[in-house]
Amino acid sequence: MVSIKAVDTTQLRVDGERMLADFSALAQIGLVEGGGISRPALSLADMEARAWFADRIEEAGFYVQDDDAGNLSGVMFTKDRDAKTFIIGSHLDTVPNGGRYDGTIGVLAGLEIARTIKDAGIELPFHLEVMNFTDEEGTWLSLLGSRGVSAQLPLTRLTDVQGGEGAFRAALTRAGIELDRVHQARRNPETVCGYLEMHIEQGGTLEREQRQIGVVSSIVGRVTTQITFRGQRGHSGTTDPTNRQDALQGAALFVTRAHQLVQDRNDGTVINCGQLEVHPGAFNVIPERATLLVECRHTDGKQLQDVDRELVKLAKVCGDTYSLQVESKQVEVMQAAKMHPRLIALLEESVQGLGLSYMSMPSYAGHDAQPMSRFTDTAMIFVPSIGATSHNPNEYSHWPDVVNGANVLLQTVLKIAARA
Amino acid sequence: MVSIKAVDTTQLRVDGERMLADFSALAQIGLVEGGGISRPALSLADMEARAWFADRIEEAGFYVQDDDAGNLSGVMFTKDRDAKTFIIGSHLDTVPNGGRYDGTIGVLAGLEIARTIKDAGIELPFHLEVMNFTDEEGTWLSLLGSRGVSAQLPLTRLTDVQGGEGAFRAALTRAGIELDRVHQARRNPETVCGYLEMHIEQGGTLEREQRQIGVVSSIVGRVTTQITFRGQRGHSGTTDPTNRQDALQGAALFVTRAHQLVQDRNDGTVINCGQLEVHPGAFNVIPERATLLVECRHTDGKQLQDVDRELVKLAKVCGDTYSLQVESKQVEVMQAAKMHPRLIALLEESVQGLGLSYMSMPSYAGHDAQPMSRFTDTAMIFVPSIGATSHNPNEYSHWPDVVNGANVLLQTVLKIAARA
Repeated sequence: MVSIKAVDTTQLRVDGERMLADFSALAQIGLVEGGGISRPALSLADMEARAWFADRIEEAGFYVQDDDAGNLSGVMFTKDRDAKTFIIGSHLDTVPNGGRYDGTIGVLAGLEIARTIKDAGIELPFHLEVMNFTDEEGTWLSLLGSRGVSAQLPLTRLTDVQGGEGAFRAALTRAGIELDRVHQARRNPETVCGYLEMHIEQGGTLEREQRQIGVVSSIVGRVTTQITFRGQRGHSGTTDPTNRQDALQGAALFVTRAHQLVQDRNDGTVINCGQLEVHPGAFNVIPERATLLVECRHTDGKQLQDVDRELVKLAKVCGDTYSLQVESKQVEVMQAAKMHPRLIALLEESVQGLGLSYMSMPSYAGHDAQPMSRFTDTAMIFVPSIGATSHNPNEYSHWPDVVNGANVLLQTVLKIAARA
Repeated sequence: MVSIKAVDTTQLRVDGERMLADFSALAQIGLVEGGGISRPALSLADMEARAWFADRIEEAGFYVQDDDAGNLSGVMFTKDRDAKTFIIGSHLDTVPNGGRYDGTIGVLAGLEIARTIKDAGIELPFHLEVMNFTDEEGTWLSLLGSRGVSAQLPLTRLTDVQGGEGAFRAALTRAGIELDRVHQARRNPETVCGYLEMHIEQGGTLEREQRQIGVVSSIVGRVTTQITFRGQRGHSGTTDPTNRQDALQGAALFVTRAHQLVQDRNDGTVINCGQLEVHPGAFNVIPERATLLVECRHTDGKQLQDVDRELVKLAKVCGDTYSLQVESKQVEVMQAAKMHPRLIALLEESVQGLGLSYMSMPSYAGHDAQPMSRFTDTAMIFVPSIGATSHNPNEYSHWPDVVNGANVLLQTVLKIAARA
């Protein structure tokens, strides 16, 4: 083993073929017949992917480690047991019938980087940990694993999860985790010296701009607000047409106007009305209740809260139009996250050293780097997505782009190590 | 027994107290703790109501009869076994947590009318049958019983029902009915000489106009159309905001504009968008599919089809606005029904004879009288609903109004009999 300071590592590269073999193996786990990949967090397929990852860690000679939030890591320890830990991570879970790249390539890049450094016989001044975070996709709770590590979980017991507490508890048990202990996954920030992540862009900007690497400047904040319109149930034929309190009409008007409002602001706000539930939902009953989930994203936390307030005000106006009661509550708030300037500079230096084209860009998707940025120095890169397609079986990235991304992270880790 | 032709029956009245005792007993069957009445068709509570009704029929000395659609009748036979049958009917089933009056008072009025005639020792020239029709409310299939009797069920096996074939088959079994035999409930129209029904108005017209009786002129036709908007699923954060194909935006715009269109027509058309389902329905996924049920009512069959066509055209326009595919299909068509002029005249004569106020009015709700009108001479009256409230626990009518309605039917049956 030689110290990083004693060698020139600028020519060191990951083994793209070895990484592709890993990628191909993982793409078989949770494969949907004729479709994409289904590895929802804590599912049997996710368990299989974790077991596969643990095998790769051991095969490479690293230490397998897990925590109370189910995060699974491979650790390459340095000589000095008291050294801090540098983390490279992402996630192996997917949305139902999702793609092969989202999350996966970040974990595999981390593994490949550690193997490359080990093969080169280089001794780092920190422990290098490659982390597979639990449930980035929010099958149960978005970013569960990275929020656990960074102590950003809700302080109460985790009972208010997608799918319900019972199913969540059962799924945790499958992974050997106890509901009451999840919070104990939090790490002491004093022991960690940084976090890097590579991810597919999931949008079309890099492809359109013909850049090989996106250096993430910030990750959008996200507020999800549940808006409930309440009217008066009634017989659809006999109730006076001029005197109806139809909850769905209020919600429908809001959906149209909310998108218009955001378009008019034209300030980088992005919204989605992804779910609308109508009660009682019978063809011949005037809707008494319509419940909408409105998600709002912005790179600036203050503007985000501004837009959310405007939308709630708009909901009241739309409700008044049909004499409806309107209630709203924020069901999830993810803070906007700035990436760390020093790490951004090192990433750009690495990109340039590798002769790659790049651009700076915000991320409109949430990532494990988001909670991690409030816990340790954090930065992130994107590699191009083809056709701006993600969260579905057609998700695709050119493999050389993925290998480029891994080399950018490798070079950045080496630079950090050399300057430590 | 005396022939109807030998006596003056103009002073004959039903026993309102006896009828109220029946009403109070039935209001205990399917009673929801702190709520209304739940007797969905073929449920255990519905079975209990049917058993109770059969007991009352036997107690009154009538013949208990049922058929392959589960309709349950009490028959007061006349001497001449070859005589035709006059039917008074309605339904004892309710929507979930519905009211005490809807349907029930029509069946109880029929029973009370038969008892009154029997007690008076009057011999009618026809059999008088008091019928409880199965599933008027459409727990499984709207107007199942009356469509069965009048041979207006879909010609295929009844597998496309609310709740699914399996549950329907199980529910039928509870009532001793076989799925494959339901169509055999059809009666020979040659054996039937008329149908009368009393029902609560379920709207606010009689109360507002201060009339005691509504004589129904026609029953609206109803078309239920399923409209599906199909877009492109995508990540709610990363998909280019200017290039989304959001199925919910199409559906929302349609809901707003459809109500506007009908308001602008101002021709008595009534619509309801009662159900909207969003797929996949996640806060962070752009809706790929939104499926809407649009119900349209009009007293004129041609205009009804016109409006439905206009609405489908509007759906395409709204779909185009967001680059969506739009599909539509009519999932249910109930023909508009004119009530029989001769029976209307006799009803009005009876109302006047009783010194009651009345008005002619269309029905914007479907009733068993609707299919029955295509099968035999049919007419129908409404008694006032208080607060225009129906299909919920607050449904209420003043009991003297209900008794008045029963007397109108009694007098009408006697007039028909006297002139036969």
